[in-house]
Amino acid sequence: MGGARGPDGGQPPPSTAPLQTAPALAPSTTATPARVAVLGASGYTGSEVVRLARTHPGLDLVALTGDSQAGKPFADVYPHLALSSKGARALPALVKIDDVDWSGVDAAFCCLPHATTQKVIASLPPAVRVVDLSADFRLANVDTYAEWYGGPHAAPDLQKEAVYGLTEFARADVASARLVANPGCYPTAVQLPLVPLLEQGLISTDGIIIDAKSGVSGAGRSAKLNLLYTEIAEGVNPYGVGSHRHMPEIEQGLSAAAGGSPVLISFTPHLMPMARGMLVTCYVVLQGGANADDLRDALTARFAAEPFVHILPPGAAPHTRHVRGSNHCVIGVFPDRIPGRAIVCSAIDNLVKGASGQAIQNLNVMLGWGETTGLEQAPMFP
Amino acid sequence: MGGARGPDGGQPPPSTAPLQTAPALAPSTTATPARVAVLGASGYTGSEVVRLARTHPGLDLVALTGDSQAGKPFADVYPHLALSSKGARALPALVKIDDVDWSGVDAAFCCLPHATTQKVIASLPPAVRVVDLSADFRLANVDTYAEWYGGPHAAPDLQKEAVYGLTEFARADVASARLVANPGCYPTAVQLPLVPLLEQGLISTDGIIIDAKSGVSGAGRSAKLNLLYTEIAEGVNPYGVGSHRHMPEIEQGLSAAAGGSPVLISFTPHLMPMARGMLVTCYVVLQGGANADDLRDALTARFAAEPFVHILPPGAAPHTRHVRGSNHCVIGVFPDRIPGRAIVCSAIDNLVKGASGQAIQNLNVMLGWGETTGLEQAPMFP
Amino acid sequence: MGGARGPDGGQPPPSTAPLQTAPALAPSTTATPARVAVLGASGYTGSEVVRLARTHPGLDLVALTGDSQAGKPFADVYPHLALSSKGARALPALVKIDDVDWSGVDAAFCCLPHATTQKVIASLPPAVRVVDLSADFRLANVDTYAEWYGGPHAAPDLQKEAVYGLTEFARADVASARLVANPGCYPTAVQLPLVPLLEQGLISTDGIIIDAKSGVSGAGRSAKLNLLYTEIAEGVNPYGVGSHRHMPEIEQGLSAAAGGSPVLISFTPHLMPMARGMLVTCYVVLQGGANADDLRDALTARFAAEPFVHILPPGAAPHTRHVRGSNHCVIGVFPDRIPGRAIVCSAIDNLVKGASGQAIQNLNVMLGWGETTGLEQAPMFP
Amino acid sequence: MGGARGPDGGQPPPSTAPLQTAPALAPSTTATPARVAVLGASGYTGSEVVRLARTHPGLDLVALTGDSQAGKPFADVYPHLALSSKGARALPALVKIDDVDWSGVDAAFCCLPHATTQKVIASLPPAVRVVDLSADFRLANVDTYAEWYGGPHAAPDLQKEAVYGLTEFARADVASARLVANPGCYPTAVQLPLVPLLEQGLISTDGIIIDAKSGVSGAGRSAKLNLLYTEIAEGVNPYGVGSHRHMPEIEQGLSAAAGGSPVLISFTPHLMPMARGMLVTCYVVLQGGANADDLRDALTARFAAEPFVHILPPGAAPHTRHVRGSNHCVIGVFPDRIPGRAIVCSAIDNLVKGASGQAIQNLNVMLGWGETTGLEQAPMFP
Repeated sequence: MGGARGPDGGQPPPSTAPLQTAPALAPSTTATPARVAVLGASGYTGSEVVRLARTHPGLDLVALTGDSQAGKPFADVYPHLALSSKGARALPALVKIDDVDWSGVDAAFCCLPHATTQKVIASLPPAVRVVDLSADFRLANVDTYAEWYGGPHAAPDLQKEAVYGLTEFARADVASARLVANPGCYPTAVQLPLVPLLEQGLISTDGIIIDAKSGVSGAGRSAKLNLLYTEIAEGVNPYGVGSHRHMPEIEQGLSAAAGGSPVLISFTPHLMPMARGMLVTCYVVLQGGANADDLRDALTARFAAEPFVHILPPGAAPHTRHVRGSNHCVIGVFPDRIPGRAIVCSAIDNLVKGASGQAIQNLNVMLGWGETTGLEQAPMFP
Repeated sequence: MGGARGPDGGQPPPSTAPLQTAPALAPSTTATPARVAVLGASGYTGSEVVRLARTHPGLDLVALTGDSQAGKPFADVYPHLALSSKGARALPALVKIDDVDWSGVDAAFCCLPHATTQKVIASLPPAVRVVDLSADFRLANVDTYAEWYGGPHAAPDLQKEAVYGLTEFARADVASARLVANPGCYPTAVQLPLVPLLEQGLISTDGIIIDAKSGVSGAGRSAKLNLLYTEIAEGVNPYGVGSHRHMPEIEQGLSAAAGGSPVLISFTPHLMPMARGMLVTCYVVLQGGANADDLRDALTARFAAEPFVHILPPGAAPHTRHVRGSNHCVIGVFPDRIPGRAIVCSAIDNLVKGASGQAIQNLNVMLGWGETTGLEQAPMFP
Repeated sequence: MGGARGPDGGQPPPSTAPLQTAPALAPSTTATPARVAVLGASGYTGSEVVRLARTHPGLDLVALTGDSQAGKPFADVYPHLALSSKGARALPALVKIDDVDWSGVDAAFCCLPHATTQKVIASLPPAVRVVDLSADFRLANVDTYAEWYGGPHAAPDLQKEAVYGLTEFARADVASARLVANPGCYPTAVQLPLVPLLEQGLISTDGIIIDAKSGVSGAGRSAKLNLLYTEIAEGVNPYGVGSHRHMPEIEQGLSAAAGGSPVLISFTPHLMPMARGMLVTCYVVLQGGANADDLRDALTARFAAEPFVHILPPGAAPHTRHVRGSNHCVIGVFPDRIPGRAIVCSAIDNLVKGASGQAIQNLNVMLGWGETTGLEQAPMFP
Repeated sequence: MGGARGPDGGQPPPSTAPLQTAPALAPSTTATPARVAVLGASGYTGSEVVRLARTHPGLDLVALTGDSQAGKPFADVYPHLALSSKGARALPALVKIDDVDWSGVDAAFCCLPHATTQKVIASLPPAVRVVDLSADFRLANVDTYAEWYGGPHAAPDLQKEAVYGLTEFARADVASARLVANPGCYPTAVQLPLVPLLEQGLISTDGIIIDAKSGVSGAGRSAKLNLLYTEIAEGVNPYGVGSHRHMPEIEQGLSAAAGGSPVLISFTPHLMPMARGMLVTCYVVLQGGANADDLRDALTARFAAEPFVHILPPGAAPHTRHVRGSNHCVIGVFPDRIPGRAIVCSAIDNLVKGASGQAIQNLNVMLGWGETTGLEQAPMFP
């Protein structure tokens, strides 16, 4: 995060300061909607951007790309998103990225695979502001990128410019950024509770153990055998143990929160029989005499003014069902039976706060809309 | 109530006529929100009303009742619905029905069990406009009610006054009603396609066979053995074969559509391993030389201006996933291999268009809001 | 079925007669196990044969083929099936079909795609007895095959020899067959109840409407977008309306049962959010003064001695959960609200009685083992 | 009992020694089956005992109790388990415990709630050998029992006699026991891998962190709101954080394995959207220079002769799907990114190896049957 700062013109508040004022519910009715492109609209994060943007008063979807499905009406790929079109602006058909007319496009959500992304973004007109949902600009250190993603970074200069957009911690930088690297789902769920605890010295940088559970949509919309209904339903398994690419991203954020001393984490993701939702259960070592109540109090204070982050009272457990479809994050803190330890649980919807919702939250900040605009939907349960 | 009314007095369109003008997206910003109570807010239809009302600019939730949970913050019963409260109006705590202060309440959603409902509604102040989600006022004939619901109707006069609120077919009557009987989920899914086809004489009143599939939330939030996850997951079964209480309600609507000649239906519901969603597969006999294309064309024309009803092109099949969380209904028509027959499929979200969404749609009509207000959310998929 | 008869040597009982004697639980301990190959063991029906054969005392799996995975230990493809190997015969590694050593192979289960199957089976040594789980030899009329499967049949002579193996109706022919065409899952679930009712003239051949619900495993283990967990969970949809290839197979069986007069059916399959299980809900017209009780009585009598077919008492509904993992079929009969009609529901596990279990049942009959050998496992619930 | 005993008196192997000889697949055909009662047969562990016992050649179910359902045929409560009765011994109807005729009963599975269990078992005839699936006799220290289960133990003398039946570690004691306390599901999944590692000093007793995921059936078959399909599907949550009653049972076993020094664990169970299956992810500190490979090697050696415990090769992850319906346990060991740590994952079916399967395994040992008798079924996937 540290090295990924934006230009910071015009005296914004400190980047980690909480939101100071109640967010406006919507852009003023006289504002012109921003003209927005969604690159890679045929995947799940792309379609989720479209879902949320449909009812966002400040966004006008002017281009949707999907190279392999170019020419199709969007309704052929996602029939559910065309249903509201009678009374609303119709969705444009899918086009190839190369065929987008960028004149008059104000901003783009980039929902493309890593590596491809670097080249596409490098080719965009400089006036287009970008929220990138891929991993390509999240790691400030391009060597780390090369190590974990299997090849050199193709746009290191852009990387320097990119702002890591965990909105709650980077508002000021996001506001003035041209390119925001939208955080990964696991890193979002982990950093929201752990960054403040590390910043305040309440937990140790040593021995942070993260047991994570993710819905299947996190793997994207691709026809893979291991993602079939028959292979997923009614079971659970760990995957990518010790090798998941979100590890360096989490470590980057936690290290910065700890003042720069390198943090190594234990991180074990599990594939869950559910389409969306993410729960991280973090096992941490207390420091400086703190106990679980102190951690909860610190988080409560830190996020008191945040519209999307909620600290549960003692004894209450975060459920992924309680945030489904929404941009919210709920966090619970528990004492551990082993003295000197605590357990911190955090739940988000991996497709919303873990991807497309946070992307819209970031664009809201970039464009000066109220930060919650288009994200007011309540979670859907049951 | 006065301040919450729209401009739209007098001269409603004929009750079965399609919506003639594009719905306003929201009440004008100068309108005062209606003050609304939700009776029985601790069940699934009640909580779904709350979910949708949270982002409805024209509704202010002033009372939530739940007799067995009175005194609890609503967040204790439904944590997910309290998450948006920081930046929004806080939800009131649950109270007993007897403790509601009705002064200044403009309207009520009644989400109570049948039988109880009659007494509660009979006791409300006459100025309160009511959308009742129970079965108590759906059957115009109180003898039919007594036969299917196991006892005499306690409020036959109110029954006479009640308007059956399948909105697309009853707009004008709903607009001026004090008491709207919100249709059941199965009757909504069945009548939307079949009523126009019967009205136009395209299908026979004989031999209508309806094979229906419903998500479990249709059974409500009650602790019953047969609704446990372990009893439902990964399986399907018919239930209530030949005895489901939605049969007389469907027959009432289809008989009226057929000009009053009594229609008997075959109706077999199935319990599905899914929380929400409803699909009805209707097997019908063609009449007057019509074929499947004629049926599709007739429905397409009939619902062309409707914001929530969508007729699929030939070959496309309705999926419940494509309407999840939304007030939409999608309908597909297929030729049958047996000559002279057709298959009509209709999908809704049982908790939205099949219950709470349609209830809000009805209240929008009653209060003169744009009909889609608060119901613009796109379906959530995956 | 009629035209698909085998040579019938040695005076077997009439092919549709019920099992007369209690089945032996197992081959006599002195019998030598049959040496068996599974062709296409890497798909779901293949692996299900392996699952069931693992504890079958009369079957010794000597060859497992999977052309695209040849060379791999079977445990790499299906780890769960290797778990019992410590105390049991180890499973052979996967090989290509062309590399199977057929000397000493007594029988083969053929679990390959249609079309491919014809060529493979035509090339097998004549001494190998075959149960074919594909569709290739189910349709007695090769013109019907060509019409529905998109090309001419490559082995019409073999087709003449093949016995359609709905075991309960074809025991004698199966016993002496070299090649058994194992029925499809939908045809099994439908024919078990409807064939006896048609044979006895209790229902009409006209207007048979079948609403079918299937678990996803019926679509096989192939990486298709529409079979992803995210695309299937928590929803339902019809598919292949009016065009499913099991229609002619069902019609062939029902027509034969009706004495040869052609039967056209209405058949609408639905894709269910469950891995396995199949329910068919059949809407039929009563004939000859019969009522639902008469149908139930007739089925009860017809299947009284059958180990795998169970008629439920009045009012009890078949659940797919109650047959999961087993070779059982449960059938319920209900009066219809429309006079002169009845509803017949039948539930099986699509992978067991609908595929691999029936295949083993057929091989048991062919080899003279007790018919239930290896199929005694109770259903697994929850 | 006499006639039902095996040949295997005297001279058992040391209680923690691995199984030395290949298990017999079944009792000799001349042995008389044991006459067995299942107390509490209407719950999930009870019905699972019945499911497995149906095909166990050495067990004859002579009494099934269910006080609240006494008088009903077992098929009314669990229709699936009655399906095999045509060709097999019919199941007795449910009776009250007080109405069981104990003469001639050799053994009982006790599947009753805790506390009740103590009194029931204390009242049984001394000749009846008992496998108790409740928690009542698992904790050797009755004070610990009182602390965690909310009241004094009612049968402390019986407690002294009880053998804790984690079969792989207690064969000799189980063989001669009258009363076996069948381990809990979580304790089984955790102790199988961790006990040998602690015994051999390869991991530290400090800082053992267990993140556990369980299917819903672990909560039993009781009509509770939080177990409804609608409350469970498509989500995950921790529960009982820091207070789950399986903690002292696990600590008892790990402390003994560590030579008696008290072990405190961090244990966080999560409720999964699946009916059965259990995965425990254990985060451990290495000791004595060991690395993850050493742990894997030690476990591989320790369980080499065990029919039900399987150590996966490096990189392979345990899936609960791979053990569903079976008595198997699969274990994987992974290096941790944090130096000096390792991750040990273990998967079982909570209802089989975690309850009823292990109970039968124990009774097999007690009666001298081959240990795998009746437990040879392969896991069911998909």
